[in-house]
Amino acid sequence: MVVKVSVSPNKRCADQEDVCHNRWHPDIKPAVEISPDDEIVLETLDALDGQIRNTPDTSDIANIDAGPVHPLTGPIYVKGAEPGDLLVVRILDAGPLGSFGYTFVTKGFGFLRDVFDKPYKVRWELGRHYASSPDIPGVRIPAAPFPGVIGVAPSREQVREWRSREAGIASKGGLVLLPDPRGAVPSREPIASEGLRTLPPRENGGNLDVRNLAPGSEILFPVFVRGALLSVGDMHYAQGDGEVSVTAIEMGGVIRLSVSLIKDGARKYGLKRPLYRPSPLAEAYKDYICIAGLNLDSAEDATSAARDGLLNMIEFLERMGYDRYQAYILFSVAGFLRLSQVVDVPTYTVSACIPREVFTRISI
Amino acid sequence: MVVKVSVSPNKRCADQEDVCHNRWHPDIKPAVEISPDDEIVLETLDALDGQIRNTPDTSDIANIDAGPVHPLTGPIYVKGAEPGDLLVVRILDAGPLGSFGYTFVTKGFGFLRDVFDKPYKVRWELGRHYASSPDIPGVRIPAAPFPGVIGVAPSREQVREWRSREAGIASKGGLVLLPDPRGAVPSREPIASEGLRTLPPRENGGNLDVRNLAPGSEILFPVFVRGALLSVGDMHYAQGDGEVSVTAIEMGGVIRLSVSLIKDGARKYGLKRPLYRPSPLAEAYKDYICIAGLNLDSAEDATSAARDGLLNMIEFLERMGYDRYQAYILFSVAGFLRLSQVVDVPTYTVSACIPREVFTRISI
Amino acid sequence: MVVKVSVSPNKRCADQEDVCHNRWHPDIKPAVEISPDDEIVLETLDALDGQIRNTPDTSDIANIDAGPVHPLTGPIYVKGAEPGDLLVVRILDAGPLGSFGYTFVTKGFGFLRDVFDKPYKVRWELGRHYASSPDIPGVRIPAAPFPGVIGVAPSREQVREWRSREAGIASKGGLVLLPDPRGAVPSREPIASEGLRTLPPRENGGNLDVRNLAPGSEILFPVFVRGALLSVGDMHYAQGDGEVSVTAIEMGGVIRLSVSLIKDGARKYGLKRPLYRPSPLAEAYKDYICIAGLNLDSAEDATSAARDGLLNMIEFLERMGYDRYQAYILFSVAGFLRLSQVVDVPTYTVSACIPREVFTRISI
Amino acid sequence: MVVKVSVSPNKRCADQEDVCHNRWHPDIKPAVEISPDDEIVLETLDALDGQIRNTPDTSDIANIDAGPVHPLTGPIYVKGAEPGDLLVVRILDAGPLGSFGYTFVTKGFGFLRDVFDKPYKVRWELGRHYASSPDIPGVRIPAAPFPGVIGVAPSREQVREWRSREAGIASKGGLVLLPDPRGAVPSREPIASEGLRTLPPRENGGNLDVRNLAPGSEILFPVFVRGALLSVGDMHYAQGDGEVSVTAIEMGGVIRLSVSLIKDGARKYGLKRPLYRPSPLAEAYKDYICIAGLNLDSAEDATSAARDGLLNMIEFLERMGYDRYQAYILFSVAGFLRLSQVVDVPTYTVSACIPREVFTRISI
Repeated sequence: MVVKVSVSPNKRCADQEDVCHNRWHPDIKPAVEISPDDEIVLETLDALDGQIRNTPDTSDIANIDAGPVHPLTGPIYVKGAEPGDLLVVRILDAGPLGSFGYTFVTKGFGFLRDVFDKPYKVRWELGRHYASSPDIPGVRIPAAPFPGVIGVAPSREQVREWRSREAGIASKGGLVLLPDPRGAVPSREPIASEGLRTLPPRENGGNLDVRNLAPGSEILFPVFVRGALLSVGDMHYAQGDGEVSVTAIEMGGVIRLSVSLIKDGARKYGLKRPLYRPSPLAEAYKDYICIAGLNLDSAEDATSAARDGLLNMIEFLERMGYDRYQAYILFSVAGFLRLSQVVDVPTYTVSACIPREVFTRISI
Repeated sequence: MVVKVSVSPNKRCADQEDVCHNRWHPDIKPAVEISPDDEIVLETLDALDGQIRNTPDTSDIANIDAGPVHPLTGPIYVKGAEPGDLLVVRILDAGPLGSFGYTFVTKGFGFLRDVFDKPYKVRWELGRHYASSPDIPGVRIPAAPFPGVIGVAPSREQVREWRSREAGIASKGGLVLLPDPRGAVPSREPIASEGLRTLPPRENGGNLDVRNLAPGSEILFPVFVRGALLSVGDMHYAQGDGEVSVTAIEMGGVIRLSVSLIKDGARKYGLKRPLYRPSPLAEAYKDYICIAGLNLDSAEDATSAARDGLLNMIEFLERMGYDRYQAYILFSVAGFLRLSQVVDVPTYTVSACIPREVFTRISI
Repeated sequence: MVVKVSVSPNKRCADQEDVCHNRWHPDIKPAVEISPDDEIVLETLDALDGQIRNTPDTSDIANIDAGPVHPLTGPIYVKGAEPGDLLVVRILDAGPLGSFGYTFVTKGFGFLRDVFDKPYKVRWELGRHYASSPDIPGVRIPAAPFPGVIGVAPSREQVREWRSREAGIASKGGLVLLPDPRGAVPSREPIASEGLRTLPPRENGGNLDVRNLAPGSEILFPVFVRGALLSVGDMHYAQGDGEVSVTAIEMGGVIRLSVSLIKDGARKYGLKRPLYRPSPLAEAYKDYICIAGLNLDSAEDATSAARDGLLNMIEFLERMGYDRYQAYILFSVAGFLRLSQVVDVPTYTVSACIPREVFTRISI
Repeated sequence: MVVKVSVSPNKRCADQEDVCHNRWHPDIKPAVEISPDDEIVLETLDALDGQIRNTPDTSDIANIDAGPVHPLTGPIYVKGAEPGDLLVVRILDAGPLGSFGYTFVTKGFGFLRDVFDKPYKVRWELGRHYASSPDIPGVRIPAAPFPGVIGVAPSREQVREWRSREAGIASKGGLVLLPDPRGAVPSREPIASEGLRTLPPRENGGNLDVRNLAPGSEILFPVFVRGALLSVGDMHYAQGDGEVSVTAIEMGGVIRLSVSLIKDGARKYGLKRPLYRPSPLAEAYKDYICIAGLNLDSAEDATSAARDGLLNMIEFLERMGYDRYQAYILFSVAGFLRLSQVVDVPTYTVSACIPREVFTRISI
């Protein structure tokens, strides 16, 4: 059977609470109930819940409200799923709702937020197999759509533990979005105040932002609550490794899934993290330029090595004629970041690569 | 013209100083002089300079002398190369000298050195296109040979600056191998005491350990001294991203290169790190199992997320029947580590993947 | 500039002669005029001009009228194009109009028309990245859309010569569709009676049915008349090598192109056939099962060897649980046919391959 | 267990009859006996049994003796194999014996033997991952070694039937090499006079010349006699589809195999031809130039369409600066021939492609 869950793309998540939510909590009511081997077609709102307009003006980006971030479609109650099982999700197909996509840079977020702090927007025209943009002429980005957020509900105990874990990180100065009822969907208590924010990924999956989860991929989640309560959102037309500007090619989307259960699988395989088989679509590139990033001033620090590779690649793209915000965004939607080595103390090598196929005019 | 530089595989680097060295210093005498567009065939000693035996016994690993690490063949003086130029190196071919390769774990080194601290050795039989091992039955590793170390000489000023930079890291508790005349080749002063150790990669390349530098690849190095003084060693039959156990499939090797110059290119392109185009050989895998690694207890830390992905993958491979040292080594020679996202504060996603093609018996 | 040419998908080609034709003739009036480097978006009708219905009933297939076959959108007049030039066409994007596609077997056509002579229909639901069908459960076909027919207008002299060439073949018993005004668009004379049928490909391209012309590909056509007069139609969602059942996954489509000219290029490069660079999309498969077809009863005959490989593959798929018409159609939309050797007299080897990725349930 | 069968590369097949033969016959004595799951390492002589010298002089080619063609190593008796079983052969590794390879054109053979009738020789230097040649500067061919000939012994009845079948083809004017004791190994009767020549492939495999049988591939053969009697030879460093000049990059080789049995599998699966899973190595190319070959003067003839594509590609390569014999040979070692369509009566499309990666100097 094919079960469909639609959203109204012109309404906010808050106005369609029966199918949409933006916090993780086990008490959110299922939008739909399915059986293993049913197929499900889900429509999803874009990651910013409609805040970004298809205009060059960046005032929308300067004034983003983080409260409604990550409207998720669901939860989906899977009959027979119980804690300790593995939920197998197959991504059968995915694509945009409409033809508008966007990528942006906003103050306070992003891997290089100390360097890139101005609001900046790139609008994409989402074609069938390629996206192009009036804001970065001369490039085209092949479609490899996937859900940035896909995950199952945490148990009540996990909600408490994870909140406490994250509060601990925040107390040491980490940048953390803690539970906050402002903008929460559902807005009813105690979910609004208790529900975990969707920004970080966790043991239940969530905002994994793994570009390889495009159609043809398969993911295994440990089940924590009866019915598993799968939710999906934040669909990306395409994304680079790292999603460095904090956004991919963001879009409202449609995704087709099937699910099955491995009873008692989480215990049997000892699986504590989502496990996946990548999509063939996400690896369509063939020819790359890479720069070897190095953490030259610190010891054994992959974050710094990645930063070094990315900064040097952006500088290289600037020499090729792109402005630095374009370069940063181009990497965010199409770059690759690989940990080439993490053992040659004190310096790691992180390769920052850009596929040559994205350029339609210049030859780099 | 084809220029060949041979080494005696049964002699130590110290006994063939005319073609071999193991420190970075601009005053090491060139082994050979070539012109752009000559081809060069270099033989190289293995990374441990012959300390590892083709026997199951691990006393050799327990007693490694780090002094002679990374015997390099060269330096090669490239006619016409001057500071500010870019040296383009094309890897035309590469392979083992002989059929013995090894991978090991040793106390005090490796990405998981707090967890894996016993000496452990895997011997490889290096075939034409696949390596196999009596120590990890049921796997085979496709050949994608490359130089772990490839770089140009630093200037005298850089030798001073980089030594000082690394001493600073050591003084803050970083694990750093500082200049040390013990085991140095050449042994003459002041090179032995001043020469930079080969372990970390630097602006001149060196121990980049980028698996993608297999035949068919191309690398651009900024030139720092007259003649460029290219050196090559530490050849690997195959390596995973990360080289997590601190060794790949190590071997004595043969490599065929050609070089050309882009005059004044480093200045023109502003290149401060090696830039490369990957080899087609290094990407032969098609089908992977991945685990999403997450830094759940720290803020914005790619190192911890990579560690989490790797530990979970090792645990998964244990469930599949490998012992944990085998699993660690298997990842070290064939795994993938990709920074899926580095923006979803406070938690990053690092995907740790193992290609299914390496397994000949079980199906994972 | 982006120029768009739309068709009415619910009207026949004959009812929209200003943008649609189904014969090759230099006197057909251009639908639109463009400049090199304009982009063009074309909508196209399906290959059978609306004769096939989205129902299981096969009476439509039993009663196909071949007259209107291959409605083409165009011709497109390219400013500045003159005989002797090369017209470079880049396929920027492509996809279906709507979500219905079909594949069929019909009496009197197809590579195995002596064996498969009953009307048979498979309806496809065309998803964003995969097509599936109620008529062949357990398979899914990745999207790699392309125009089956793409070509430039022949000169008047070529129309005469090629008609005469084909009449010669018919006179020796070859199966040839000769000019025929029945169903011709435009219906005005002398075009209707003189215009070449679209079934065979010719020096001007036309019904090349090359699956590799999906988005990302590039084709060079010799120009024969002023303005080149490019026409496009017969779009396929996906096709196997050979298109053995005489149909691919047929659909009405949308295609985005850009063109440029190499002045005097046909003469300069001596190009007498279309030359192309394949799309990356068309090669997404990674894992195949192949059977070595052999012409065991004839001398040096690739046609027989291909037939032998195909028949054996169909028999193999029957053992795997498909009925033979399903198997034939599956190969028609996803198979591979490679001439492994054409020299080992008297017997050639043609490999008939089916990619394993199309099967979602069984493992072959 | 690993079983090794060596040959003396400096001796002719006739001088080492215990391990070498060049006819198909069930009564040839096994060179060795193995059990399923043993590994076997076989050395093989080159296809011409040492007749071709590593010199530019072509008198050797002008005077080829076809009698000793295809020295095969074996037969290998597989314990437990019986008629009706399937023999599964896994190609674990393969490579050259030594570093000399050759490709040639000789009068009377080859796909274009009416056009190319002069003796012509290309010598190859076989590197670890690429071959290059003084006779075609500016190209390099990636290693994808495989056995041109691999097969099992026919039964006595099949020897009779197939001889009769081929005599029938010869009697209609087909070019066929019929049984001939001249040069036969073993030379004893009745094998020498009855034994089938190795040139054509047959139901038992043999000279399949399928480039995709490189390391990593797997082949299933129907077993016709007790012990299966597997033989292997004619190793190629690399080959194009078609092997159009009648030779690939020919070499003496080493190949590592393992075998297993599917009892009664030939009957169960109805398999009448060798079935295989291609090697990942054989598809390393990524970027191609193709020409659409068309049989414009005949009806439904894949041979003519392939010939048309090949002739046009050779002409194109001539414009790029290669002489036509070089172009013919380049295609023979690296080209692709795909049956794009075999239904658009009366004209087929065969795509003749050359991968751009083989060119190191010019850009086509």
